[in-house]
Amino acid sequence: MNKMILDELSRDDLTALILRAKKRLGLGWAEIAARIGMSPVWTHSAATGMNAFPEDKARAFAELLGLPDSAVDLLVESPLKHWDQAVPTDPCIYRLYEIVGVYGPTIKAMINEEFGNGIMSAIDFSMQVEREPNPKGDRVKVTMSGKYLEYANW
Amino acid sequence: MNKMILDELSRDDLTALILRAKKRLGLGWAEIAARIGMSPVWTHSAATGMNAFPEDKARAFAELLGLPDSAVDLLVESPLKHWDQAVPTDPCIYRLYEIVGVYGPTIKAMINEEFGNGIMSAIDFSMQVEREPNPKGDRVKVTMSGKYLEYANW
Amino acid sequence: MNKMILDELSRDDLTALILRAKKRLGLGWAEIAARIGMSPVWTHSAATGMNAFPEDKARAFAELLGLPDSAVDLLVESPLKHWDQAVPTDPCIYRLYEIVGVYGPTIKAMINEEFGNGIMSAIDFSMQVEREPNPKGDRVKVTMSGKYLEYANW
Amino acid sequence: MNKMILDELSRDDLTALILRAKKRLGLGWAEIAARIGMSPVWTHSAATGMNAFPEDKARAFAELLGLPDSAVDLLVESPLKHWDQAVPTDPCIYRLYEIVGVYGPTIKAMINEEFGNGIMSAIDFSMQVEREPNPKGDRVKVTMSGKYLEYANW
Amino acid sequence: MNKMILDELSRDDLTALILRAKKRLGLGWAEIAARIGMSPVWTHSAATGMNAFPEDKARAFAELLGLPDSAVDLLVESPLKHWDQAVPTDPCIYRLYEIVGVYGPTIKAMINEEFGNGIMSAIDFSMQVEREPNPKGDRVKVTMSGKYLEYANW
Amino acid sequence: MNKMILDELSRDDLTALILRAKKRLGLGWAEIAARIGMSPVWTHSAATGMNAFPEDKARAFAELLGLPDSAVDLLVESPLKHWDQAVPTDPCIYRLYEIVGVYGPTIKAMINEEFGNGIMSAIDFSMQVEREPNPKGDRVKVTMSGKYLEYANW
Amino acid sequence: MNKMILDELSRDDLTALILRAKKRLGLGWAEIAARIGMSPVWTHSAATGMNAFPEDKARAFAELLGLPDSAVDLLVESPLKHWDQAVPTDPCIYRLYEIVGVYGPTIKAMINEEFGNGIMSAIDFSMQVEREPNPKGDRVKVTMSGKYLEYANW
Amino acid sequence: MNKMILDELSRDDLTALILRAKKRLGLGWAEIAARIGMSPVWTHSAATGMNAFPEDKARAFAELLGLPDSAVDLLVESPLKHWDQAVPTDPCIYRLYEIVGVYGPTIKAMINEEFGNGIMSAIDFSMQVEREPNPKGDRVKVTMSGKYLEYANW
Amino acid sequence: MNKMILDELSRDDLTALILRAKKRLGLGWAEIAARIGMSPVWTHSAATGMNAFPEDKARAFAELLGLPDSAVDLLVESPLKHWDQAVPTDPCIYRLYEIVGVYGPTIKAMINEEFGNGIMSAIDFSMQVEREPNPKGDRVKVTMSGKYLEYANW
Amino acid sequence: MNKMILDELSRDDLTALILRAKKRLGLGWAEIAARIGMSPVWTHSAATGMNAFPEDKARAFAELLGLPDSAVDLLVESPLKHWDQAVPTDPCIYRLYEIVGVYGPTIKAMINEEFGNGIMSAIDFSMQVEREPNPKGDRVKVTMSGKYLEYANW
Repeated sequence: MNKMILDELSRDDLTALILRAKKRLGLGWAEIAARIGMSPVWTHSAATGMNAFPEDKARAFAELLGLPDSAVDLLVESPLKHWDQAVPTDPCIYRLYEIVGVYGPTIKAMINEEFGNGIMSAIDFSMQVEREPNPKGDRVKVTMSGKYLEYANW
Repeated sequence: MNKMILDELSRDDLTALILRAKKRLGLGWAEIAARIGMSPVWTHSAATGMNAFPEDKARAFAELLGLPDSAVDLLVESPLKHWDQAVPTDPCIYRLYEIVGVYGPTIKAMINEEFGNGIMSAIDFSMQVEREPNPKGDRVKVTMSGKYLEYANW
Repeated sequence: MNKMILDELSRDDLTALILRAKKRLGLGWAEIAARIGMSPVWTHSAATGMNAFPEDKARAFAELLGLPDSAVDLLVESPLKHWDQAVPTDPCIYRLYEIVGVYGPTIKAMINEEFGNGIMSAIDFSMQVEREPNPKGDRVKVTMSGKYLEYANW
Repeated sequence: MNKMILDELSRDDLTALILRAKKRLGLGWAEIAARIGMSPVWTHSAATGMNAFPEDKARAFAELLGLPDSAVDLLVESPLKHWDQAVPTDPCIYRLYEIVGVYGPTIKAMINEEFGNGIMSAIDFSMQVEREPNPKGDRVKVTMSGKYLEYANW
Repeated sequence: MNKMILDELSRDDLTALILRAKKRLGLGWAEIAARIGMSPVWTHSAATGMNAFPEDKARAFAELLGLPDSAVDLLVESPLKHWDQAVPTDPCIYRLYEIVGVYGPTIKAMINEEFGNGIMSAIDFSMQVEREPNPKGDRVKVTMSGKYLEYANW
Repeated sequence: MNKMILDELSRDDLTALILRAKKRLGLGWAEIAARIGMSPVWTHSAATGMNAFPEDKARAFAELLGLPDSAVDLLVESPLKHWDQAVPTDPCIYRLYEIVGVYGPTIKAMINEEFGNGIMSAIDFSMQVEREPNPKGDRVKVTMSGKYLEYANW
Repeated sequence: MNKMILDELSRDDLTALILRAKKRLGLGWAEIAARIGMSPVWTHSAATGMNAFPEDKARAFAELLGLPDSAVDLLVESPLKHWDQAVPTDPCIYRLYEIVGVYGPTIKAMINEEFGNGIMSAIDFSMQVEREPNPKGDRVKVTMSGKYLEYANW
Repeated sequence: MNKMILDELSRDDLTALILRAKKRLGLGWAEIAARIGMSPVWTHSAATGMNAFPEDKARAFAELLGLPDSAVDLLVESPLKHWDQAVPTDPCIYRLYEIVGVYGPTIKAMINEEFGNGIMSAIDFSMQVEREPNPKGDRVKVTMSGKYLEYANW
Repeated sequence: MNKMILDELSRDDLTALILRAKKRLGLGWAEIAARIGMSPVWTHSAATGMNAFPEDKARAFAELLGLPDSAVDLLVESPLKHWDQAVPTDPCIYRLYEIVGVYGPTIKAMINEEFGNGIMSAIDFSMQVEREPNPKGDRVKVTMSGKYLEYANW
Repeated sequence: MNKMILDELSRDDLTALILRAKKRLGLGWAEIAARIGMSPVWTHSAATGMNAFPEDKARAFAELLGLPDSAVDLLVESPLKHWDQAVPTDPCIYRLYEIVGVYGPTIKAMINEEFGNGIMSAIDFSMQVEREPNPKGDRVKVTMSGKYLEYANW
């Protein structure tokens, strides 16, 4: 019985399959994203199980990477977003956590001053990560755009 | 003895004093920032004890808000950056934490693909928070720029 | 210096003042809410510092309870929403936490099936708490209404 | 020996089996619930191991989804309700947690004012999740009903 | 302003006042309980802010201990039940925690076997602590009685 | 090598085996306990690895359930008592945890008043779980008896 | 009102008073202990609020250190044993924690092999800390003696 | 590939092998220790992976228990000392943790008074666990000896 | 499907393979490091998955240890740096954690005094671990060198 | 009574006093250290309560900074080393924590390979923090030296 269940492709299996296919095909995320007509950030995020593909994008993505048929079903499902570490240990990700700790209250103050009593949505949200050339050493530019949501009162 | 110590202005007292003066003078962060020639994000952050003012900015800031003389000494000190909640509860700040949880591994992958084996600095770093007009509802735009730092090997 | 700062009314002081005035005047939340034209849930929440009053409601509320002038300024500020206990210990509040633990994945599945890949907003959100008469013992009815927010893809 | 044990169907295996059968049959929770004469919320909750089926419902459910005979035994057992994350990371579930943090003390105050010294039961409890049409964007409506329980004194 | 607020009797102040009066009067909990017609467990629990007194008991209790008038208002309020230590450090209380860890799943199994799919209420609940004479050394006998609550299904 | 090790019966395997045999034989804990001459609470606790059987009881228990020979060795070993959740999530077990949080200091006060400076043992300890008939709904009665242990001083 | 309460001597105040008196009198714990006829470990532990003095020892101790009359009442009370750090940070105390981590399972195995299914009591318990001269550098010798407690079965 | 890796004996496998061999040979830790010329505490600790054997002891131990050749390599390696539970749940081990919580500051004070500004080493450290006969019930005697280490100043 | 995925070499598998090959070849880290022209600290760190090899070093390393072809791909990838224990339990690693706890604020003060408002980089960073001969017992010398990074202001 | 206690100088008061005197006198740690004949790291650490001064150094330090007489007593006491944050949030201190996370196992491996089965002492330990000139930007050099301690076996 369990054997039967284990033969099914899990979301984690699919992620492993995707990463292997990407390596075998020698494709970068930017290129994969361009081919399916999405941004690199969103494509990586959906490919690794943090977002759901619309069906047409799922098909294009599966075809491009040569994934099995059952992959499309998984790619379009709303994933359970899950992370294990309340404080991330990877230095690259920790720096982002640190930015939230140091500048979180400032971002809140900026939003309150400019917009009023509300927040930036993390759902109606998009993000770009780009290279910013700089003679003193290039910089990473992260641009976030989230819809302003006003608190209701009733 | 303690009384003498308690009469000193602490960094938290200073923050309270600044917020009161700002309210009394009817100034916004954007205006205060413009007056001292810095950005609003940085000004709020330094005013509330998450960054240190350069001495000339500290003087300009103290003069603008009518702070006592001892304030300048505190404003230029490297603060101990401290936050209590590993997972922030305020919804506006939590959304940023959630973005790190959901998109942290993606940002790492983007940096690795574009730059190599390194990270975005949170020290040689700047940030803007802006209004992005949008017919479906205005958006909050957060732009971060941090120097790319490559891992050494030796 | 600190003395001066301590003489200011803090948000916690204001909450204490409000609770005392309410007791002295013998008013219930339902009655206070009716007088200022808001719902009891929202009124309690804003009075105790978990939501911000619109200015007219702040004035009506302050007048009704005989609060000092400086109260209005505090009542209209976007509060830092803060709670100390990741798992609440009070039995009445814990039961709500338990409901999230037991039924959280179910609510997610219901939203996904009915609406698609999105969530219920906790910002564009309202709630009622009512008595539901029942011959086997009256029941507490909690009704939540939050805007459906669809995940963006880009 | 272990092999023999592993051949048994565990509760987690059963959940996987149920989700696969549901997908294969193309059934939604609302439809499954209607067919066995229960609500969608309760059906999902019991199907995924957070509640126990009465025996007749278990049989109807197993028959509808074509589950093996041993499934009924598991479906009627009182499950050990278990969740790993004190603070849930999935955004859809986190919003509910946030609502408990922000409005928990308010719900307590409403219950105390309306009923007295007691709580809303999470055991003698039911819940609906519905679509609430709205011209500004449809809303998710969650209705909870729990028996009021008065504290004993002795 | 704060001074005025600080002059109010807080619940913690009241507990301190009660403990001092009890010591001054040389009364034990058993005797206090007998005088107001309640059990010792409940009396201690309500006196120290973990339960609310009915009004007549509050008056009797306040009179017996010579508490100020404002005490009655506090004694009848539904307290916010709060404890700081998820795992209690005091050895006497830890042993109870250990009993829950070791025998919790057993108590659940006993309830499931004897009653069905439900729990023992901690609200409609009472408890006695008694001496159990024993030639090998007297024993502490703790008797709990909580209403059986059956899970609803709907 | 590992294969050889994995073929051994672990304590968790044994628990699974016991639960399966119990179900197959249609026996309740009360009946199993009566057959081996122990109480139901203790029998369940020892069967599921939270207590050690005396050898004669282990043999009787293994024979009754038809366990393999190697089971007796495991049943008589002092188990490592282990639980994962500092705060249990299962509602039936959580209610017991809540009782410790709410009434723990009270039980300590009762023991101090009646016995002196000591605790109730959780080792020289026994417990019963019984049905308490009640016209308003039957109740669960839990009776604990632990030896009073006085703190040494030296 | 609070003023009156604050004028009472708290247990923490008393500890501070004791440490000050000890320093003023130039007494070590060994000497204090000898004067009141107890061991140094126990004396320090009771003086700093982790154990309760018998009344005669409390009187002798209070007289020796010149404590106020109200001190005796506090010294004989069963203290709430409380520590804040689940993992102690002080290096001297951490080493003891580390010993429990490294050798805890070994001590359990030694007790099980030598005594049977039971534990070492931490209540009927005493301890000495001594200097052990050694040519390679003197050593700290800690000797613990706790009554063996056998698990009951019933 | 993984298969090859999994065929290697891990340290946990070795511990399982040792415990099985010990049971099969009917040897106690005291006897095993005597045979290889070490103390029982140290032997158990090294056998279960909390200490490293010197090579001659590893050979004697492996020969006595009939362990495979590859065992010696593992037995002499410096193990990564690892424990999962910051607060141990097993009652026998918890009592030791409790002793550190209650008496840790006292042991520190004793060391400071007798030796100066330093600690007891947990590395240059040894321990015995013995039976202490006592007419009121035998006692467990734990004796620790650790080198005194003085803090450097520079 | 899973089988196919499991046949791939994971990073953890590779670490196990490396440690086995190192033992089989009888090589120390110092020697391996010398052969590939890197330092021992960096070599161990990269070999065990905490740093990424440049491609030429990866090839030299893989050839020296006889690793399979697929190893090079893994060795050059930016690893996700991950550790499980917020407070490490291994005594050798804990001492380093303790040094950060005790001397962290001092290192910050030294950097602020000598350099200004900035930090030591942990990315543009190198470290040596050496033996420091000493007649009173040799010492471990750890030398860290990290680029000074000044906080930006903008 | 409390007033009397509060008038005493606490260790935290003393630290505040020291920092104020240092600022008033315009002295850096390097200069203070040179004047009392100690290193800057040690001087800061002892001044801020993480180490104890020898008596002569305490006197020199107190005289230099014009501290009150009672300061010397506090400066020579073995402090309780205490830190609140298991994971430090200040970026400058966090980088050190990160180094322990990333390189801790490597340092352990280096010590094991070079010295054997032991650790680096954090007690018989010293540290320097220096500027390392570098054309690409100066570097922070941290040098630690701790006595190698070999595990005992017995």
